[in-house]
Amino acid sequence: MSKQAARPEPSWQIHVEQVETALQRYVAPQDDCPPRLQEAMAYSLLAGGKRLRPVLALLACEACGGKAEAALPAACALEMVHTYSLIHDDLPAMDDDDLRRGRPTSHVVFGEAMAILAGDGLLTLAFEILARDICPGDTAAACCADLASAAGYCGMVGGQVADLEAGQQSVPNLETLERIHERKTGRLLRSALTMGGRIGGADAQLLDALDEYGRCVGLAFQIADDLLDVTGSEQQLGKAVGKDAGQGKLTYPSLLGIEDSRDRARELIERACQCLTVFEDERARPLKSLAQFVLERDH
Amino acid sequence: MSKQAARPEPSWQIHVEQVETALQRYVAPQDDCPPRLQEAMAYSLLAGGKRLRPVLALLACEACGGKAEAALPAACALEMVHTYSLIHDDLPAMDDDDLRRGRPTSHVVFGEAMAILAGDGLLTLAFEILARDICPGDTAAACCADLASAAGYCGMVGGQVADLEAGQQSVPNLETLERIHERKTGRLLRSALTMGGRIGGADAQLLDALDEYGRCVGLAFQIADDLLDVTGSEQQLGKAVGKDAGQGKLTYPSLLGIEDSRDRARELIERACQCLTVFEDERARPLKSLAQFVLERDH
Repeated sequence: MSKQAARPEPSWQIHVEQVETALQRYVAPQDDCPPRLQEAMAYSLLAGGKRLRPVLALLACEACGGKAEAALPAACALEMVHTYSLIHDDLPAMDDDDLRRGRPTSHVVFGEAMAILAGDGLLTLAFEILARDICPGDTAAACCADLASAAGYCGMVGGQVADLEAGQQSVPNLETLERIHERKTGRLLRSALTMGGRIGGADAQLLDALDEYGRCVGLAFQIADDLLDVTGSEQQLGKAVGKDAGQGKLTYPSLLGIEDSRDRARELIERACQCLTVFEDERARPLKSLAQFVLERDH
Repeated sequence: MSKQAARPEPSWQIHVEQVETALQRYVAPQDDCPPRLQEAMAYSLLAGGKRLRPVLALLACEACGGKAEAALPAACALEMVHTYSLIHDDLPAMDDDDLRRGRPTSHVVFGEAMAILAGDGLLTLAFEILARDICPGDTAAACCADLASAAGYCGMVGGQVADLEAGQQSVPNLETLERIHERKTGRLLRSALTMGGRIGGADAQLLDALDEYGRCVGLAFQIADDLLDVTGSEQQLGKAVGKDAGQGKLTYPSLLGIEDSRDRARELIERACQCLTVFEDERARPLKSLAQFVLERDH
């Protein structure tokens, strides 16, 4: 498949724009919010990015027969949780990164205290939006539970701790690596699919299919990310490259080599696409294109 | 009223024990959670403390005719959010405190990265518990919205930012001080009352009464805290005293003096007790005792 064919198709670009508009509305200035805090939250949330998780939520909703608009609060909540995790991961006490999405990181611009609080604010706002703006209440509660479980101590936060601890480990292996990624990035991405599915009215079979699709795409996405750290340029990525290898971090290319990493990603994307056979063909087509895009992206 | 009369009554002590047991269960070791993260979360969450917010939630539920057990998930969620805020506030980048509840703070024991993540984990777990364990789904969603709004950028997180910024302000005044406390501690305390009330089946009138009771008790609690910083001993409080004044922090005693601060707290507690007249006498009695306790406590 050529790179050209893997570019976002028009329908998907519309979803990105819907998400951008909704995100701007959600972090607009508020009377009760200190202006500097609002600025810090908006600075990181509105810094662009692929909006992969929000788009997945919207497409999953549509694949189940729902309207994308109904899943917009979930889409925005996912991006807020993703953004908060980046702000906190970039802190000096953690990965100590100065550059993110081509711009200075939050703590560089706003100071450490404000960066911590902007992250806290975004995480909390994610749940406020889900609980208040998803209908009916049962679905809102189920989405809150999905997101919290995915983002929490047995999910994303646990994965970040495991990742920090793995740096000190003497014998790295594929099992450890995949377990870290399952939690650090995989669980959140899977929750994008299940939340979108719930809002679209998915039954248990469709939810399972979306969950497994999400698991495969999430791992493939991480492999692609690791590969880009080795093969991409700083300009394409908007962040420092070669840093993982330089820090002796556990990555797919360092464990499997570049070619085997590519093969593993390809297998995962094939499996993801197989999961979609339970959906009506036309409805799941955008999810299939997106899976291919993950494999072929160069930024 | 003598101090003896303000001691917790037996029924209320039972609520504290219910909360302790439930908290222990919620942060027990989990297969998918890195052990050190679970330790850090449990270390701060199970460090004792008055459990004021959880008890308020349980008592509000009972005042409306519900069973305390039904509100236990909300009670635990409140304590998790309170604890996360303490962990993050104590960080070197924020208030830089080494001692909390008589023990070294989280970042002193576990390091800064783990303290940030333990806080993130507790905040997220709070919403997981609420969303999953409160029935029915509508009430769960309403509680998630209450808690998130109270804890978020227009509530507690915003209050912490305003507090940090107020330290740099040249002309402190009572209005600024009360606006900070409304958000930093008041909103969360009020949400304890409204969540408990919702779970107990409160109608709009009872919810309003509980909210106003919570507002008054919250401010009175903060005044009492400021007074204890001036008049208490380090041994009684389990943390450094005189620190607020030493840092030139905005407090009630520094603005109003000790006697006027005591008067203001007394007025607020009277108003809180007046709010309870809409309840059946016997059911709201524990909330009345608790309000008195806030005024008279010495630790």
